[in-house]
Amino acid sequence: MKSICAVRGVSAAGIKEGKFGLALIRASGTAAGVFTSNKVRAAPVEVMVDRMRRGRLDAVVVNSGCANAYTGRRGIRDAVEMCAIAAESLELDPDAVGVASTGVIGRYLNLPLIRDQCERIAPLLARNGDAEDAAARAIMTTDTFPKHALVETESFSVGGITKGSGMIAPNMGTMLAFIYTDAEVEAPVLHDILRQAARRSFNRVVVDGDTSTNDVALCTATGAAGKVDRGELARAVEDVCRNLAVQIARDGEGATKLLEVTVRGAADEDSAVAVARTIVASPLVKTAIYGEDPNWGRVIAAAGRSGADFDPYAVSLRVGGVPLVVRGEIVADLGAAKTAMRGDTVSFDLDLAAGDGEATAWGCDLTERYVEINGKYTT
Amino acid sequence: MKSICAVRGVSAAGIKEGKFGLALIRASGTAAGVFTSNKVRAAPVEVMVDRMRRGRLDAVVVNSGCANAYTGRRGIRDAVEMCAIAAESLELDPDAVGVASTGVIGRYLNLPLIRDQCERIAPLLARNGDAEDAAARAIMTTDTFPKHALVETESFSVGGITKGSGMIAPNMGTMLAFIYTDAEVEAPVLHDILRQAARRSFNRVVVDGDTSTNDVALCTATGAAGKVDRGELARAVEDVCRNLAVQIARDGEGATKLLEVTVRGAADEDSAVAVARTIVASPLVKTAIYGEDPNWGRVIAAAGRSGADFDPYAVSLRVGGVPLVVRGEIVADLGAAKTAMRGDTVSFDLDLAAGDGEATAWGCDLTERYVEINGKYTT
Repeated sequence: MKSICAVRGVSAAGIKEGKFGLALIRASGTAAGVFTSNKVRAAPVEVMVDRMRRGRLDAVVVNSGCANAYTGRRGIRDAVEMCAIAAESLELDPDAVGVASTGVIGRYLNLPLIRDQCERIAPLLARNGDAEDAAARAIMTTDTFPKHALVETESFSVGGITKGSGMIAPNMGTMLAFIYTDAEVEAPVLHDILRQAARRSFNRVVVDGDTSTNDVALCTATGAAGKVDRGELARAVEDVCRNLAVQIARDGEGATKLLEVTVRGAADEDSAVAVARTIVASPLVKTAIYGEDPNWGRVIAAAGRSGADFDPYAVSLRVGGVPLVVRGEIVADLGAAKTAMRGDTVSFDLDLAAGDGEATAWGCDLTERYVEINGKYTT
Repeated sequence: MKSICAVRGVSAAGIKEGKFGLALIRASGTAAGVFTSNKVRAAPVEVMVDRMRRGRLDAVVVNSGCANAYTGRRGIRDAVEMCAIAAESLELDPDAVGVASTGVIGRYLNLPLIRDQCERIAPLLARNGDAEDAAARAIMTTDTFPKHALVETESFSVGGITKGSGMIAPNMGTMLAFIYTDAEVEAPVLHDILRQAARRSFNRVVVDGDTSTNDVALCTATGAAGKVDRGELARAVEDVCRNLAVQIARDGEGATKLLEVTVRGAADEDSAVAVARTIVASPLVKTAIYGEDPNWGRVIAAAGRSGADFDPYAVSLRVGGVPLVVRGEIVADLGAAKTAMRGDTVSFDLDLAAGDGEATAWGCDLTERYVEINGKYTT
């Protein structure tokens, strides 16, 4: 087992039929969630924001193919009904079932299909590698591989699955992440841990800059492992989130390369994040990565428009360890730089020489395939 | 004549040899400029910010092929030398010559080439249609057509040329605009007029969101037409700037369609601008336009992440006049919407029902060709 089913108390099942998938994850425990900052929030997000006030979940039901976003009151009713359908199949209290959706915006859920899929997979709930993989595959949209992560310590485990071919998948199809631990932890503490981990992982991945209407990261703690050290748990949750976030970036729509940008020496961490995110989001940087073109001026120019304060002629920049600029002096050996851009990961290291702030952000290259995938989706 | 040479007191010349072009524009008068907000500013921008304090220019020299950006003190010396070379050819005071550059970042100017081109074209300075077109072509990079605009009133004229295949051309190659009027106007007034016009035109065009290191819009007033009504002049300058800005959007790198987004009913004009700019910059909206895919959920979702305050279920949205959403109700006839997206211009009209703020922004579709153009540039 390589993710959620390695965590004591978690079982899963999933089905994917054409564009339409359904996953069920059964795990009772304290729970916390973080949600999209988009002003336009999907119905399941609205329902979950309300539902997470209880701080407990017994299960989660997730569908792919329809985002149930911009669907008004009917969308809310449908999301609540989807929880009730899952609760019935699993013989649980409907209020303790979480819900998430991913797919096209502005379409209503096909509840009969969801009921049918739910009834077929509920008996298949299991705690093994096939079950967690079926769940991870059921929630995929344009993802090209299922995404698992697991950290096991001596005393507890943290496992997660996610989907997302960017901060956004094809149709604001979104990033969804489901993380489980057998540690025993109060819901408010779990929320703080998850929020911090998401800030340093999912929130530092940019595929195309379009924040989705459906983004959700949920963490449930079953408590089977008993009480654990809070710092150790926070590190494990952050490791799992970062691992999943990097998988999302690598599987960005149409991507051929992972882009990793570390910014050091910023005035503070927020500035470092702003610079790193602006660079990984720049279409000009992304196309240069795709073409293995050591056009480092685009990296410096992206930093320049990030809003961060620094002296352009104090910075140092490297790609894959090859120096391009050293304290404002151009030292680029473009041949060596081009060689450093081969392979499936391209890493930039930018030192702003303006303080102690440091952050890493992840993205991917921009290719013709991204345009192809997103040019024709609804019709 | 269709732009600058229609303005009394203006003559021009230009040459383009491979990637390397040079334009000379001769016009004495009060002058004002607006410049990039990027923290990393090219050497010619630094020189011009300083030089424009005088509020007068006798000529402008512009090269394409090298941006003279991130070139430190040597870049500044080179930009000043470029002014001196042009001044010598034109027998002018070097301090009254303006300078601008566009091309690759992090490379030094080829001053012998600039001197050679300058000496060859100075004798060709003329006031006719061929001369203004030669100047407009000399400053092109990935532009596919030269960009001219002209407004003629009973008492005065305003003409301009620009280059830019986006807020950014291939290598932060940038937007440059040169606007001339024969109206008589004080430099500070001209500056206010230009700043306001740029805010409502160039600043509302987004091709890829990468603000360049070299962006410049310069306006020179020769005074040959004598004093004019300030409001009338402001309208004419804004019309010329808007005309040029829309040409830049239509000629966005790899673009096949112009995207025009009008936002009404925002809390204020700034909110309207934020929403309109976010929509025209969204990669998902841009790819949908390319594919003529009426995926309007992406437009609403982009508005949702713009930071503007509005009730998602109060909005109305149309594409090319076809209603998609009316006060939060989905009324989309996707067949009619798809038809409205054919043709070379796609217009969205979004009413936020939250106030009186209104603004229009322009962009273009995102195509495989954009990736191709930008994937391999420096090498």
